[in-house]
This record gives sequence, C-alpha cells and structure tokens, in this order.
Amino acid sequence: MQPLTRIRHEPAAAPGTSPAERYAQLRATTLSLADGLSPEDCNVQSMPDASPLKWHLAHTTWFFETFVLEPALAGYAAFDPQFRLLFNSYYNAIGEQYPRHERGLLSRPALEEVLAYRRHVDAAMERFTASAAAREPRWRDLVELGIHHEQQHQELILTDLKHALSRNPLSPAYREALTRPAVAQGTSVWLRYPEGIRQIGSNGASFHFDNEAPRHRVFLAAYELASRPVSNGEYLRFIGDGGYRRPELWLSQGWDALREHGWDAPLYWRGGDGRRRSFTLSGERDLDAAEPVCHVSYFEADAYARWAGARLPTEAEWECAAADAHTGGNFLESGVLHPAAAPADAAGPLQMLGDVWEWTSSAYGPYPGYRPAAGAVGEYNGKFMVNQYVLRGGSCATPQSHIRASYRNFFPTAARWQFSGIRLARDA
Amino acid sequence: MQPLTRIRHEPAAAPGTSPAERYAQLRATTLSLADGLSPEDCNVQSMPDASPLKWHLAHTTWFFETFVLEPALAGYAAFDPQFRLLFNSYYNAIGEQYPRHERGLLSRPALEEVLAYRRHVDAAMERFTASAAAREPRWRDLVELGIHHEQQHQELILTDLKHALSRNPLSPAYREALTRPAVAQGTSVWLRYPEGIRQIGSNGASFHFDNEAPRHRVFLAAYELASRPVSNGEYLRFIGDGGYRRPELWLSQGWDALREHGWDAPLYWRGGDGRRRSFTLSGERDLDAAEPVCHVSYFEADAYARWAGARLPTEAEWECAAADAHTGGNFLESGVLHPAAAPADAAGPLQMLGDVWEWTSSAYGPYPGYRPAAGAVGEYNGKFMVNQYVLRGGSCATPQSHIRASYRNFFPTAARWQFSGIRLARDA
Amino acid sequence: MQPLTRIRHEPAAAPGTSPAERYAQLRATTLSLADGLSPEDCNVQSMPDASPLKWHLAHTTWFFETFVLEPALAGYAAFDPQFRLLFNSYYNAIGEQYPRHERGLLSRPALEEVLAYRRHVDAAMERFTASAAAREPRWRDLVELGIHHEQQHQELILTDLKHALSRNPLSPAYREALTRPAVAQGTSVWLRYPEGIRQIGSNGASFHFDNEAPRHRVFLAAYELASRPVSNGEYLRFIGDGGYRRPELWLSQGWDALREHGWDAPLYWRGGDGRRRSFTLSGERDLDAAEPVCHVSYFEADAYARWAGARLPTEAEWECAAADAHTGGNFLESGVLHPAAAPADAAGPLQMLGDVWEWTSSAYGPYPGYRPAAGAVGEYNGKFMVNQYVLRGGSCATPQSHIRASYRNFFPTAARWQFSGIRLARDA
Amino acid sequence: MQPLTRIRHEPAAAPGTSPAERYAQLRATTLSLADGLSPEDCNVQSMPDASPLKWHLAHTTWFFETFVLEPALAGYAAFDPQFRLLFNSYYNAIGEQYPRHERGLLSRPALEEVLAYRRHVDAAMERFTASAAAREPRWRDLVELGIHHEQQHQELILTDLKHALSRNPLSPAYREALTRPAVAQGTSVWLRYPEGIRQIGSNGASFHFDNEAPRHRVFLAAYELASRPVSNGEYLRFIGDGGYRRPELWLSQGWDALREHGWDAPLYWRGGDGRRRSFTLSGERDLDAAEPVCHVSYFEADAYARWAGARLPTEAEWECAAADAHTGGNFLESGVLHPAAAPADAAGPLQMLGDVWEWTSSAYGPYPGYRPAAGAVGEYNGKFMVNQYVLRGGSCATPQSHIRASYRNFFPTAARWQFSGIRLARDA
Repeated sequence: MQPLTRIRHEPAAAPGTSPAERYAQLRATTLSLADGLSPEDCNVQSMPDASPLKWHLAHTTWFFETFVLEPALAGYAAFDPQFRLLFNSYYNAIGEQYPRHERGLLSRPALEEVLAYRRHVDAAMERFTASAAAREPRWRDLVELGIHHEQQHQELILTDLKHALSRNPLSPAYREALTRPAVAQGTSVWLRYPEGIRQIGSNGASFHFDNEAPRHRVFLAAYELASRPVSNGEYLRFIGDGGYRRPELWLSQGWDALREHGWDAPLYWRGGDGRRRSFTLSGERDLDAAEPVCHVSYFEADAYARWAGARLPTEAEWECAAADAHTGGNFLESGVLHPAAAPADAAGPLQMLGDVWEWTSSAYGPYPGYRPAAGAVGEYNGKFMVNQYVLRGGSCATPQSHIRASYRNFFPTAARWQFSGIRLARDA
Repeated sequence: MQPLTRIRHEPAAAPGTSPAERYAQLRATTLSLADGLSPEDCNVQSMPDASPLKWHLAHTTWFFETFVLEPALAGYAAFDPQFRLLFNSYYNAIGEQYPRHERGLLSRPALEEVLAYRRHVDAAMERFTASAAAREPRWRDLVELGIHHEQQHQELILTDLKHALSRNPLSPAYREALTRPAVAQGTSVWLRYPEGIRQIGSNGASFHFDNEAPRHRVFLAAYELASRPVSNGEYLRFIGDGGYRRPELWLSQGWDALREHGWDAPLYWRGGDGRRRSFTLSGERDLDAAEPVCHVSYFEADAYARWAGARLPTEAEWECAAADAHTGGNFLESGVLHPAAAPADAAGPLQMLGDVWEWTSSAYGPYPGYRPAAGAVGEYNGKFMVNQYVLRGGSCATPQSHIRASYRNFFPTAARWQFSGIRLARDA
Repeated sequence: MQPLTRIRHEPAAAPGTSPAERYAQLRATTLSLADGLSPEDCNVQSMPDASPLKWHLAHTTWFFETFVLEPALAGYAAFDPQFRLLFNSYYNAIGEQYPRHERGLLSRPALEEVLAYRRHVDAAMERFTASAAAREPRWRDLVELGIHHEQQHQELILTDLKHALSRNPLSPAYREALTRPAVAQGTSVWLRYPEGIRQIGSNGASFHFDNEAPRHRVFLAAYELASRPVSNGEYLRFIGDGGYRRPELWLSQGWDALREHGWDAPLYWRGGDGRRRSFTLSGERDLDAAEPVCHVSYFEADAYARWAGARLPTEAEWECAAADAHTGGNFLESGVLHPAAAPADAAGPLQMLGDVWEWTSSAYGPYPGYRPAAGAVGEYNGKFMVNQYVLRGGSCATPQSHIRASYRNFFPTAARWQFSGIRLARDA
Repeated sequence: MQPLTRIRHEPAAAPGTSPAERYAQLRATTLSLADGLSPEDCNVQSMPDASPLKWHLAHTTWFFETFVLEPALAGYAAFDPQFRLLFNSYYNAIGEQYPRHERGLLSRPALEEVLAYRRHVDAAMERFTASAAAREPRWRDLVELGIHHEQQHQELILTDLKHALSRNPLSPAYREALTRPAVAQGTSVWLRYPEGIRQIGSNGASFHFDNEAPRHRVFLAAYELASRPVSNGEYLRFIGDGGYRRPELWLSQGWDALREHGWDAPLYWRGGDGRRRSFTLSGERDLDAAEPVCHVSYFEADAYARWAGARLPTEAEWECAAADAHTGGNFLESGVLHPAAAPADAAGPLQMLGDVWEWTSSAYGPYPGYRPAAGAVGEYNGKFMVNQYVLRGGSCATPQSHIRASYRNFFPTAARWQFSGIRLARDA
C-alpha cells in the first residue's frame, strides 16, 4: 500500500500508548472536527439519514456514559438525565428515543452545553480509568467498543457535514486543504485468485465488531479482482455511453431509483459534459479524472460493473484478496483490464484500504455462528442485518486505525452520501 | 378596551417620530427578539410553514434591499448578490427562490453575517432616507410597506420559535415573564347589531395592505356577537362533552384532520384531564381556565361554535362590530351567553384587538374592486386569496401599532401554530 | 336559452306525472346509463374522488332504503344488512363506512346482485308510494330528496366513467353520438348589471337543497358578465401566450398544483400545438375551437380570467344574471369582449344553464341563516362547506330537470374531472 | 413425503405427454382457475403488488405471443397490437409498459376479449407446434419457459385473488372445498447435517430457471434443520409471549414495519385471543392450530426464529436437506425441538415441498457464474437480484410439477400475501 492523501483527523497512536491516552486522543480528535464551524453548522440535519455534528458529539459521549459510567463508576451522576432519551440513537433496551429525523430541531442543549457534557464525561472517564473496574475485561471491552464507536462517528461527522454543506447554494468549504481520495494508481489490471476453501472474519488478534466474527470457512471459486478502484475518468465513459439512460444495465429497483431521484451522475457531481465539477469538503472543484469515483450507490456500482462486463466482488472475495495483499498474497496477474501496459507496481491490489468504501455484492447478514454481544450493545449490529449491502476497505474519511481487512460496513442500496466507490471482479 | 398584558417587544412610537426614527425603532425591536437566543436557536426550522429566526432577520432586510435600495439608492452595492435568491420568500417576479422547507439547512450565512447584512442595509437606508427619492410617494410607500412587512415577521418570529421550542423534550423557555393572552374578561354576553348596509375596508386614514381595500358596501342581516373570546374553561367543557369524538360537530375535512393528526385538544396543550398544562414561550405551565383559548384551527373553532349552538362571525360582521366599539357603537345587548349577570363593563365587545386572532367564517378573497399593488410587491397578498380563512383582531404577539380593525390575516384551516382563538356569533 | 345538444339520458317529465311515475322514470334513466357497459366497466374506480358505476347504482338505492323504507315502510326487510355499511357514502349518523378509495375493490356484490337490490327496493318503494306515509310531508320530502340525489349521481356516473375510460390507453368510447357541450354562441360581449340590493337563494317555488336557502339579500356593486362561456379557441390563445408558464397569472396554490401535476392544458386534452385532440365520452376527437372550454380547475379558470384582464363572477352576481335572463333582465350591454360586432342574439347571457359548470369566485359556505336538514340527511351539504368553490349552471351531463338558477355545486380548487368551464366577469 | 391436501388446479401429466398436450393442459388449467368468478372478480387489483386475474390471463398469453409467435411463426398476426404495451409486465427490451399499479383500471379489453385473445394465441401455438421451428432448441426452450412462466402465474392468480377477496367485508369464498396447507406432521425434531463442501443449483436434468444455475460448490458448517414447518399453534405461543410487542426480537426494519402496518398476527388472521379466525380461499374459518403458519413476512419469520432460540436456514442448507430427503439423506436426528417423543416417521424432513414457501436467510442474488438468458427474457430473473430474500419449497398453491428442490422463489421482506411460512434451523 502506498501512503495516501487522507483527511488527517487522527494522530497516529504511538506504540505503548496507555488506554487513558488513547481515550484522550480519540476525544480530542473528534472535537477537532468541529474546528472552524459555527454552532449553526453543528446543528444542521440535511436528511433523516444524517445527523447534526452536535448530535454526534453528544451521542458518542452518551455511549460512554450509558454503557460504562452509569453501570461501572460508583457515584457517577448523570450530566442531565434527559440526555438518556435525547441522545439514544436506537437502543430499545435503553428506552425511548427522540425521533431520528428531528435531531436538527434540538437547538437545546446548545453546543456549549454539549461541550460541557463531553468534559463532564471525560472527567468521569478519567476517574473510571483509574479504578479497578477499568481492568475487568467486561468494562475494558466496552471502553474499547466506545472508542471504535466514536471513530465510526468521526467518519459520519464528515459525511453528514458534507451532505449538509452541499445543500447550501453558497457551496461553502469545510476546510481548504484536505480530504480527497487518492488518485487511482496506474492502469487497472486483473489479479487472479485460485479456487479453494478460505477463511474470513476477524482472527481475534485485534479489536473487531461482533459482526466480523466468527472466523469461518467459505468456498471460493477462482476469481479475478481489479488492481485498483474505478476512476472518475472510467466512470465518465460509462456516462458517455448512456449508462444512466439504458435500463438493461440496471437492476429493476436501481432503475426505479434513478428515475425517482433523477440520477444522472454520482452525488455531488455538478455541471454537464462541458466542465464537470464536484462538490467537496473544500468546496466546489473541477473533477479529477484520476481519482476513484466516489459517492455512488450500490445500484450505480452494479450498473457500472454490468456495463464493464464484470461484476462486484463478494465480501469473501474482497477480504481474501485484502488479506493476501498484506501477507504477500497468492494472486496471479491475468491480464490488463483496459488495454495498456500493466504498471510495475501492480504486484497486488492497490488502494483497498482507506480510499473509498467498495461496494460488494454481499447482502449484509450474520456470519455462520454469529452471536450478538450481550446486553444492550447487542443492538449495535445484529438488528440491521437485512436489506443492506456490505462495503469494504474504509475511505479517506475513515480514521486510519479504524481500517482493517475484516471490517464490514453496510448501507442501503440507494445510499450515496458515504465515500463509496467501485472495484470490479469477474469469474476466472 | 382594557390594557392587556402583552409581549412588549415594541416601544410605543411617540408623536412626531421621524421616518428614520421609526425605521430604527422597528429594526431594533426585531433584533431584540433574538436576545438570549443562541445561533442554533435562530437556525431551527421545525416545519415547512415556519422559518428560522435568522431567516426572518435576513428576509426582512432583503425586502428593503430589493424593493427600495436596489432600485432607488444610487450606487447601492448589494451585501451579497447570492442573498437575492436565498432570502426571497415567494416573489416570482424577483427570480428563483431557495426551497422554503429547507430554510433550516442554511447554516451559512452565519447569524453574525446576517447581523452584518442588517447593519449594511440599515446604513444604506439611512443614506436613502436623507435622499430626495425618500420623499417621493412611490418610495415612501415602499418603505412603509417594508416596516409593516417586518412587523408581520416580528409576530412570525414568535410563533415559529414557539413551535420549534415546543418540539424539544426539554421544553425550554424563551423568556420567563411575558407573553400570555389576557384573561377573558367577565361573563360573555351577546351583543346585538342591526341589519343594514355597512362599509368595510380601510378608510385610507392610515397605512393598510392592498387586501384591505377598497372600502366597500356590504349588506348585513341583524346578528349578535359574543362580548369576549371563548375561554380555556369554556373550551374544556367542549372537550369534556366529547367535542373531539363526535363527528356531527365537525366539518368533514375537519374530522379528517382530527383523525389524521390525532387532535384531542388545542396545540400546545399537554397532560390529560387530571392536570392540564400548556407549553408557552415561558415554558410549560398550568393551563389558566380564564385565558382565551388559543392555538386552535379553523376546524376546531367551527366545531366549538356548532357545539355551542352558534357560529363564527363573518369578517364583515366582525369588522363592523370592531369599528363600532371604537366609535361608541350601536349594538344592543340581547342576553347572556352563559347564564350569569352581565358584567358592568360589557358595554361593547371586549378583547377584540390584540389578545388572540379570531377565526371568521369568511374565505380569504379579494374585496370587490381589489387591485394588487403594482410590481413585484403585487405578489404580497393577492396570490394567496384561495383556500384560506380570514382571522381578525391581532394577538398578544402582534405589534401594537400593527393592529387595526380592517386588518385581514389569513391562514389555512388546519393551521394551529398562530395565536388563534374563537369569538362566537349568531343570527339575531 | 337556445336548445342545446346534451347527453339525453333523461326523458322530459310530462305535466301531471305522478310521483310513482317520476320515481320509475328516474330509476330507469339511471339504469340506462349502464347500457352497453360490461360488469368490469361498472366496477372500475380510477381515483379516490370517483366511484364505480356499480357503486353509484347501489348507493342511490341505499339512500331510499335507509332514509325512506327502513323508517317508514312497515315490515320492510333489508335486501342485505351488510349493504348498510358497504354503500353508505359519508353519513356518520348511519354508522361506519367502507373506505371510499377502495370502492373499486368490491367485486362482490356482483353487478347482477346490485341490479337485484335495485329491483327489491323499487318494489318496496312501489308499496311505500301507495301507503299513507307517502303523503306525509316528511316522507314525501325525503323521497323528493332521494330523486334529486340520484340525479346528482347520474351526472357523477358520467364524469367518473369518463375519467376511468380516459386512463385506458385504448381510449374506449362510451357512446358514439352524444355528449359534448354546445358550441359557444357568437361573439362574447359584456353585459352590464347595475348596483343594488338583490336577493339570491331559492324562492321555495320548487325543490331545492338545504344549501340554497334561505333566500337573502346581498349588496352588489355594478358589474359586467360575459355573454357566453370562454371557448376552446379563446383558451388556446391563453396557452399560446404562455398561460401555463407564467406564474404571475396564477394563484400561488394554483402554480404549485400546475407544477406538481404537470398541467399544460385542460384535462383530457391530448397532443401538442400541431393537432389538438380531446378525449370525450365518444372517444378521442379533434378539439372543437368553438365549444366552451371544459374540464378546467378553479386555478385554471382564475388564471385565465387574470390573463384576460377580467375575473370570475361571484355566485351572487352569477345567480342574479341568470335570474334576470329568465325574467327579461335588466342588464345593459356595455361593450364587446373581443373586438367584433355584437351578435344580434346577445340580448342576454347565453348558455348559462346546462353547458358547462361555471366556476365562481365564491367559497362554498352557508347562506346567512342556513340550517342543515334534520337527521342524518343534515350531513348532505353542510359538512362540506369549507375549502371548496361554488360552480353554477349545470353541464351537458346534468339532468335537465336538475338545473336551476339557485343551484350550488361545489368542488375543490384542483378538481378537473367535472364538466367545469369559465365565464368572465369584471367590475363595471 | 406424505401426500398433501393441495389446491388441485393441475392434472398430473401422464408419462409420454406430448408438448402440444402439455401446452393444452397448462392453458386449460389456468382458465379453470377463473371458474365461478365474475368479470368483476377478474378485474380487481387490491394492491400494486397484485394483479387482476384477467391481467394474468392476458399477460401469460402475451408471453407466448411476444417471445414465440412473433419472432418464430411466419405470418403470425398480432391479436391486437396495443396489447404489446398493455400486457408487458416489466420487459424494457420489449418497450413501454402500462403502469403496474393501474392494472385494475383496465376494464377494456373485457374478459371476453381476453378469452378470445387466449384462443387466438392457442390456435397459433398449435400451428407453431406443428412447424419445424418448434423443434429448434431455441424455440423449444422458450415454449418451455412460457409454460413454467404461466405456472408461476397460476399461483399468483390464487394469492392475488385471496388478497382481493380478503379486502371485501363480505368475506366471499372462492371455492368451498380446497386450499389449505396440510396439517403439521407430528412433533418437530432437529435433524442434523454434517459440515462439508456440497453442491447446490440445478443439475440440469429437468427444466430450471436461469437463476438456479450454475450448479456450484458451497461450504456448509454442520447445522440442524427442523423436521417440519412451524405450526399455527406454535406461532400462537410466540404471540402469547409478546412476540409482537418486544423489539429485541425483531430486526430494526421489521420493528418499523410492524409499527407502520400495525401487525399483530399473520396476514388474514382475524379476531383476538378468544377465537382466532383466518380468512381463506374458502372464506373465513376457525384457525387450525396444526396447520403450518402461513402468510408471514420475512421479518416475522426471523423474529419467530430468534424467539425460539433458532434461526432461519440459508438456502444452501435448505436445498441440501431437501436433496437428501429425496435421495435417502445423510442427516442425523439430534433432539426434539419441543420436548416430546419423536414421531416414528421423522426419518427425514417433512413437508418441505408443497405446503408453504419457507423463508431462508439468504438474500436473493446471482449464483457464482450466473448468466442471464439471452435477449429480452434475460430480464426474467436477474434484474430482481437485490433486496429480496429467497423462499424455498413451494406451497399448496404451487402447481405440483412446478416444485423442485433447486427452485428459488423471492420476495421483499415485508411481503405477506404469498403462502409463506417458517422452518427453523440452528448451528450444530
């Protein structure tokens, strides 16, 4: 993997960092995402699927308060008992929830008060970390979960904010110099993987969500994977070839979505054939043909693949290739995707981790033997295992330490506001 | 009229106040409504019919900029050309409009920038007022219109803010000590008005909107009007008598609305029979049985009247009675609405102006001979003259100098977030 | 009135016709409307506002059964007790109602069974007519109401069927030779009416619905009325002049409706500028420029009037002119609407009765002193008196004996499937 | 497999039946489903997902006309060229389609005309069958596809008709003596299947749809499958235990669906705890506790399984077990699902084929190496491979010869109007 130009919202954790230091770094990183934003910016909710930045700040704090401090820190006094309802996202076991689509109406508590809430919980977490309970596996695991939970919200803060700013005719920039997925690297070639029984799922060596376990065997027929994600330039050829006007390229539901929403390009693309522009977190810019295409729905990814005479990879195919890439790999280079000389560095798949989330053809479901975590946090993943599709790899907006080959992200098939792109596969 | 406890957001204009002073007072009054609110508070839009306070601050400013400064102040430079679209409410003649239901997404421009916009326009208006153009009737009238326009938005700021705060489970208070409609005064009695040809509409002695003209003749049969608005206590008897469960009391559309929205009491009422509470701009309070009932839809007003064996007045009946009340009147007291001694002070209708807007049975339409104002401001009133009903009298949230007997307010029949109440009438 | 080419679904009642004969003629006329239709044709419901022909056949029968036979014919046995719910349109006092928008799902009872239901009730009505009760005013009035009720449904059968057939790509014809509004007669001229106190409302000389009473005084300023309805040819000029593209011509709600529904011509118009066609009950035909424009909404009528520098008449203005036309009249001819020689026959308004329903600017509301009929039939009219507008005059689909100058029809402002047209008015 | 009481709408094809005889039998069977129904019954569409029986009769005919006769029968004249659009379900390659949700509006062509259309096509098919082309594999395969296509619609005719009749308050019966799923057989026991690489998908020995191919290897961990479907009696215990009131048992989308639709029992169940009734094709009947539960959504099946401490099988698990059952099998009996003596006949899974469709946990997607059929019929299956879940086994409404172990049915997760039930699985 080449180093990538990414949103650098996360300092690397030096080896030997203590839990308290990791927690502090996490929380500081989250806060830093609000730098330069006004209280109004932090309060806007531009669609039901997105949440205000202030809500993210509060909800991640609520998570530590609810799942760690209240049960495990003696004498802990809630900052405000009403926050239990206000900032509960979807945990029925905790109680009622404020309606998701109305989070943008919560001008109170004010941003300042939410920041005070964070400080209140941070101080309590400091006391907790020094307590004996913090060393019990049960609570240690919940703190770890809380950290990874907040990392997920760090990415959501960026995707939700990007969506909100994009709706403003002023096209405001969030930050001037950051953010974009890396340019697609070299010519795309097909990398070949042999058939066999493989294992996927977390090997337990590091933190993982419950949906990444248990590690289990799958049978894979031989397949090929593109060496890099589809680029904007390649996607433009799909558009130019009538990609958005030919129903035969689309799933039936995809074609319906296209017509309902008037899709004719990825989300955030602006302008017509003459001069394509794209709205980014740095404002509106000329489209870079070399970047991976981004902000496409599953339907668009699937249609592009059909147009290209290929298909999307399954999540097992993807994970095995990603695992190989890290271990030396056993793929075989089989040919050039678009006729051109294969680049010298195409010894393995490129840009799998941390550029764009890559749609897979796998519906999000439980692994064989899956058991949700005990207690309310069992609602974290399991109850969403239907009618969503898995994305792999992490994006330029994902915290670096949050990315791993076994990670399973998931979104509905029409979602486009995540940093989601395309990598092609085909039968060998 | 007895003096009322009202939202005192408007200092009285002393006699001899200059136009420049009136403008300055107006603008200061508007700004003062935001005192104590956070930028988030000023950005929230809780439903498509309501707008964020920040938007009201900007739109009223846009009005002066668009209709006065741009055409009539030489050398005027727009604060930001993009505001022409952003803060245009509904004037097609001016150009495109930002979607109304998404005003809450506009975190930019920030509140601070909107305040700077106000200062920019205020400074230019100061220059304009000193110019010769300011004395031309055409521009003088447009400034006057802008002042009354902004007064309307002063009231909308309060109604929209009340709605937004009411959606917050924290039930935040806007201000501690203010706001409520006065208590209903004494026993309600029927006041009788004889038949005859009367005149309604503005007599032109003071400012009026185009929809109040021309003054014209109407024939009225003899009728009776209640001496004061219906009180909460009276309305509670309607509820106790199954008012919200008996379709025979309701217009068909009203019954549909009741079932669709689950209405069982006026908007902002909370709690059940045991202890009625009401959300107010001062937070949640015990319901005061003596206050005029408020925040009822046309449908509820109509159903209450039917239950009471009465009806709503027409706007002509209402205006003639209001005009009489100011001139000595010619009504005849005919009986007690609820058996009790008539109060000594029931020499005329009470609380007609400035307590609650009173629904009339008159559909909002043009007066005979109506001509909309010339130019874009002709869209101010005329294009809304369908499927709305007229309310009269002004509320506790209406600026005092904005209230007059000929004033025609109008809202759709299901609207409840205005300070709208009920006064009964019946055929004599 | 000139004789008109009309839908001849009603034989004229000869003088001296007995009540039993009138009932029999009514029922036979209704049945004849189904001639040539299949059971499927009679079961289709193409939108919630329209009902299947079979439902009309049953509901009009239910009306006699429920309001006459059950209370007033000793020993009457209901045909099927379940029909009480199935064919109750909207009478809450009678009990629950089958959902209106699902009437098209009722394949049972079959058409044959509904015809048997009609025969069952007709036989009972024959017994009733011979009974003493039939001569009591109370029951005699209810039978009369039932007759006029069924006449209304005769028209609705045609409008609903036209709508249903229009949705079929086969453009089927209902009948070959019938149906169209008459051609507009001659050049339209302005007829002038002086100011004064006039009376409107039924004079009680013949049957009227409760909403036509009481007759009462109104004050009318001087006004002018067009001598005939607007023609298709005139309406084409409105379209050609950008009528559907200029928001300044439209009420705000009208413009919203235009954009939501994509209106660019009256309902049932097909084809573009080259060759205008129109779907009729005789199938698709070339548009006749001389016919009155038909199937326009209130919004379109209002926009056309604004474009023409005129307005719609109030219902009082319309009724006074119609009454005058029958009594000799007192109007004064004031000028030619479109520059041309006034026709010799323009001695009074033409085509007011029985060509197209003419939208008035009057919201549908109670007349002063209005009292709904006692009992369940009190729901007939009163509960709909909000958010609808009055149409006057009757159409080519209205039974001849059902037309009268005081008749108040009413529909929502976006309705277009009735035979609704435009007559212009203006201030004198 | 025990013989089952089924909807006998299909005579068994005797060995040696000729293609022409099979076609004739198919067509006669389809027609027989309309026996005793009125034209109105055949025209009703009770929801967008269901179609009128008349439409099914026409569309299955259109299929043969479009895919066989027009391209392959020289001199074939279309019965009516307009039917190409009217009865195209969803083939974009064929052209435009009449809106699916408005099929119930098509009173024309009348049922009689559709029957004539069938005769016209049947006569042409007779000519075609005698032609040389009929022996070419390409056309022979399309005829075969048309036969299986029409068999699918035979089942849909019954499910759609059941839904339509269920909406009628008269609860009409379709046929008196038929229809129900068989009673659940004996005590349910767990049958155990070992881990290993298995093959699923059609082995090509008989007709299959493209989505059943290619046959391919899968790795299965050891698992257990219930010996029979869940019964109504078992499902009643789930309800009694608060199954519809406990969000922890439900997928998040399932809980949303439950609240949106007010689900508290399977579709067609009526009455409360006292006396459960069920609407069937024979009218309303007492619920039979021993029958397999039917008309449940994926969400309900999944919630039931979670409540029972089990899960739904994957389609691979299901198919392998079904295949084993037919070949002798290799399962091991592992225990009793509900404590009771295992029945003597539980030597293998019972009632897998032809009682109720059994929801699997597998999202409907392409098998590895899947290739849609060439031409327009390639739209048959492939374009629906997203956001649906696979059901297996066939129901009492499925034609017997249409049932096979590799058959993949698929519906969205909230669909309940199919004969869909539950079989439990668990990890071994």
